[in-house]
Amino acid sequence: MAYNLLKGKKGIIFGALDSNSIAWKVAERAYEEGAIFTLTNAPVAMRMGEIQKLAEKTNAHIIPADATVLDDLEKLFIQSMEILGGPIDFVLHSIGMSVNVRKGRPYTDLNYEWLTKGWDVSAVSFHKVLQTAWKLDAIAEWGSVVALTYIAAQRTFPDYNDMAENKAYLESIARSFGYHYGVRKKVRINTISQSPTRTTAGSGVKGFDAFIDYAEKMSPLGNATAEDCADYCITLFSDLTRRVTMQNLYHDGGFSSMGVSQLIMEQFGK
Amino acid sequence: MAYNLLKGKKGIIFGALDSNSIAWKVAERAYEEGAIFTLTNAPVAMRMGEIQKLAEKTNAHIIPADATVLDDLEKLFIQSMEILGGPIDFVLHSIGMSVNVRKGRPYTDLNYEWLTKGWDVSAVSFHKVLQTAWKLDAIAEWGSVVALTYIAAQRTFPDYNDMAENKAYLESIARSFGYHYGVRKKVRINTISQSPTRTTAGSGVKGFDAFIDYAEKMSPLGNATAEDCADYCITLFSDLTRRVTMQNLYHDGGFSSMGVSQLIMEQFGK
Amino acid sequence: MAYNLLKGKKGIIFGALDSNSIAWKVAERAYEEGAIFTLTNAPVAMRMGEIQKLAEKTNAHIIPADATVLDDLEKLFIQSMEILGGPIDFVLHSIGMSVNVRKGRPYTDLNYEWLTKGWDVSAVSFHKVLQTAWKLDAIAEWGSVVALTYIAAQRTFPDYNDMAENKAYLESIARSFGYHYGVRKKVRINTISQSPTRTTAGSGVKGFDAFIDYAEKMSPLGNATAEDCADYCITLFSDLTRRVTMQNLYHDGGFSSMGVSQLIMEQFGK
Amino acid sequence: MAYNLLKGKKGIIFGALDSNSIAWKVAERAYEEGAIFTLTNAPVAMRMGEIQKLAEKTNAHIIPADATVLDDLEKLFIQSMEILGGPIDFVLHSIGMSVNVRKGRPYTDLNYEWLTKGWDVSAVSFHKVLQTAWKLDAIAEWGSVVALTYIAAQRTFPDYNDMAENKAYLESIARSFGYHYGVRKKVRINTISQSPTRTTAGSGVKGFDAFIDYAEKMSPLGNATAEDCADYCITLFSDLTRRVTMQNLYHDGGFSSMGVSQLIMEQFGK
Repeated sequence: MAYNLLKGKKGIIFGALDSNSIAWKVAERAYEEGAIFTLTNAPVAMRMGEIQKLAEKTNAHIIPADATVLDDLEKLFIQSMEILGGPIDFVLHSIGMSVNVRKGRPYTDLNYEWLTKGWDVSAVSFHKVLQTAWKLDAIAEWGSVVALTYIAAQRTFPDYNDMAENKAYLESIARSFGYHYGVRKKVRINTISQSPTRTTAGSGVKGFDAFIDYAEKMSPLGNATAEDCADYCITLFSDLTRRVTMQNLYHDGGFSSMGVSQLIMEQFGK
Repeated sequence: MAYNLLKGKKGIIFGALDSNSIAWKVAERAYEEGAIFTLTNAPVAMRMGEIQKLAEKTNAHIIPADATVLDDLEKLFIQSMEILGGPIDFVLHSIGMSVNVRKGRPYTDLNYEWLTKGWDVSAVSFHKVLQTAWKLDAIAEWGSVVALTYIAAQRTFPDYNDMAENKAYLESIARSFGYHYGVRKKVRINTISQSPTRTTAGSGVKGFDAFIDYAEKMSPLGNATAEDCADYCITLFSDLTRRVTMQNLYHDGGFSSMGVSQLIMEQFGK
Repeated sequence: MAYNLLKGKKGIIFGALDSNSIAWKVAERAYEEGAIFTLTNAPVAMRMGEIQKLAEKTNAHIIPADATVLDDLEKLFIQSMEILGGPIDFVLHSIGMSVNVRKGRPYTDLNYEWLTKGWDVSAVSFHKVLQTAWKLDAIAEWGSVVALTYIAAQRTFPDYNDMAENKAYLESIARSFGYHYGVRKKVRINTISQSPTRTTAGSGVKGFDAFIDYAEKMSPLGNATAEDCADYCITLFSDLTRRVTMQNLYHDGGFSSMGVSQLIMEQFGK
Repeated sequence: MAYNLLKGKKGIIFGALDSNSIAWKVAERAYEEGAIFTLTNAPVAMRMGEIQKLAEKTNAHIIPADATVLDDLEKLFIQSMEILGGPIDFVLHSIGMSVNVRKGRPYTDLNYEWLTKGWDVSAVSFHKVLQTAWKLDAIAEWGSVVALTYIAAQRTFPDYNDMAENKAYLESIARSFGYHYGVRKKVRINTISQSPTRTTAGSGVKGFDAFIDYAEKMSPLGNATAEDCADYCITLFSDLTRRVTMQNLYHDGGFSSMGVSQLIMEQFGK
């Protein structure tokens, strides 16, 4: 069902890899809600993905950009404004990757070059996106920026490894830049802390299936899906949430407010 | 601008007193978005207000109910379901009152009868509303319940007095009942922690104008207004936020994530 | 091992019931650390307990007082100051009881008279203690007040029932009164959020043993014991923590910062 | 006044620069409490400081080490264990520096090489310290590790710039590593979130004096001093806080729990 919530709004969506991606679902929903936007991803990621299909389906241009490279980001914003015909109303940052996780290094034996790489991709990229937009004055007044994050920034999930730190850093950027961009231009910046989601990226994490099941049983409403997350993003991009900023918003079926559920205790007690 | 976000949804709105009330604005916006609902308030409060005008404007029935009286609440839910033709999709709880605040008693010299009265009205009423609905099975699957609160539940604002405790209790009810209602019926329960708002009720607080100005200058986006809050409520009542539950959601222009703003430091430094 | 951390300090300890009580352990440790103090509990609770043994062991007077009765509290403070020879340096509030829990009423079918009784005993009593002390100017400069609480104030544990709300209210009192008493007299007020502890009171909660085991396996350091809690209280009563106030301090082996532990996932995955 | 709280304990103290440093005060207090320890700082920092005086006063060896260099850290731990005669009981990490702050770059125009440098020094160094200790099994069972942080990790203080992100990352390391080290060896890891403190390092921040005054007036107990912080560290290194881990502990005179104080409103209202 569509409501025209984003009619006429212009956006940039980072991180659509394939049809399991949250960013992919956001693009589909944003299109249904009347938005126009560009899609972007790292050149290397795009080759693996099927982003061209998404672009066709949503009438979007693809602009390859490495979100850690300032020049790429500058071109992305300039071209997006040209293609879309004006400043950007919404941005989705859905980028995250830890080399240490990928290569199975335990948290107590991290490789610091890999740590730095993952931090740059997963967290600093968000600052680079915002700083580039700021310098180009590329975001419209009352624009909305959302980055996806995870509750590992607040609590320890052993397998999440150094992504916990990356997400904590990312969420801090949302607050810090949210202040500056709010004062200057009424732009709001928030993070959505999403349930564990079976994306292609998420699947890399060890023991992920069991963990998804655990989170499902802990959450009174069950895990939020990628589709649910897309719906929630739409509300945050819409004009109905203009005064929400610098927040980390849990979209997780209640997981974050649970101590323990009866379902978990039952399975635990077996 | 309307989006049909609540088309066909049935609601109950507590606490519309006059056109300054947040609940009043929510009723207006819910009507625009296609909802049907009943309006309710304590008999004593309604005589002072102009709720009849609102009812006409929004095609709503008024059902007087003291939210601390279980019989009243039971009638309210039963009649609302009859009038609206089925179970309730959304509920707004916008009720708060401290006798100690009204009568100017300092926090270190509270009258405990008044404390109990304010707690019953401001906080326990929320549990009574939910327990009544639960027993009648009066809320539809995936229904949404919102109560309004204030950041005094987390941080101390001296003039807010014993309302701080009431709001902390209220927010805890949202989490506790949110668990049970989520598991049973996918109903979500959240609180919105709103900027200080110049309502008729809010005006009772000492030094309120100076404080509104302080909060305005602390908040990067300025204070959220009653109209803004109504917009935000609409998103929480809509189907786009189905997996958000047991959360306390700051709707405050960024106030809650501020340490200090430049505007405040400038005025402070004078 | 003792350090003389409380040498010459005067205290009041609420809530020692029997040798399983945290308050009992605090009394023993405070005595070892050189404090003098009075012990108090509700007359009805004391008959059941063995508090006389504790009093002998710690050279303490017992002053019966119902913490919900202002007259009792006034006498308690006046007599304590007489016996101890001056204003009070530290207070421990370890009082909590829910009639609904005791009688097995589910959270969705609460009896509101019982709710009110439990709230008065568990939460309002803390305000009454502080307000009584305030009026009598009974707490010495840089005094320290600690109340015991539980993480159910932040997250939902279904069996904790309406004690969740009581603890949220209690913690809010610590913040609110902590402000006033800090400004007036440098008195600090904090809550300790303790691991589930096998006290006589705690044992009333349904499924408590399984839950203790769950918390043990979730907490990297295991559950904090009553003895551990007594040690921690000593630090908070000492002069070494003078600038810590209005805080809720987790003393729980790390539970509060855990998403999930490997031990829990292993047992869950079976 | 001394209590022998750290009698026989062996420690490593990072970050004593001059007598204004918190780490300096911690060293003095740890010595008074019976600890033996080594002092360390970056070679470049030590030339500027007066650490030799401190070493003499506290009977400590100085071991220069760049906390971003793994080899230095390995030597530091090995030599410390040799000198002190066994594994380490406590570690203080008091290291922080932002090149962007030093060079006056605004948050919206950061230099990313400087950002990386500051992050490595201020945040990653903490992981490197812990990982080095882990590999050498250099921390004794029930050991205690503390890092100093600031509330800018949770709320925005514009002048704190990219140190906000560094502190958020640091605090996340405390949680993540706290899990692993707790499970393996009962080692606890916490951060102390200290009031703004007039150290030589802190003085670099723009508008610092006015801000110190603001924090003083917001905090019911006034700002915590470096001496106060040293006292608090002692309690966390002692055996009395063994079950506190993975926590961020505010030591700030109540600032973190304040919405607004009467003193601030009075000055604001002028």
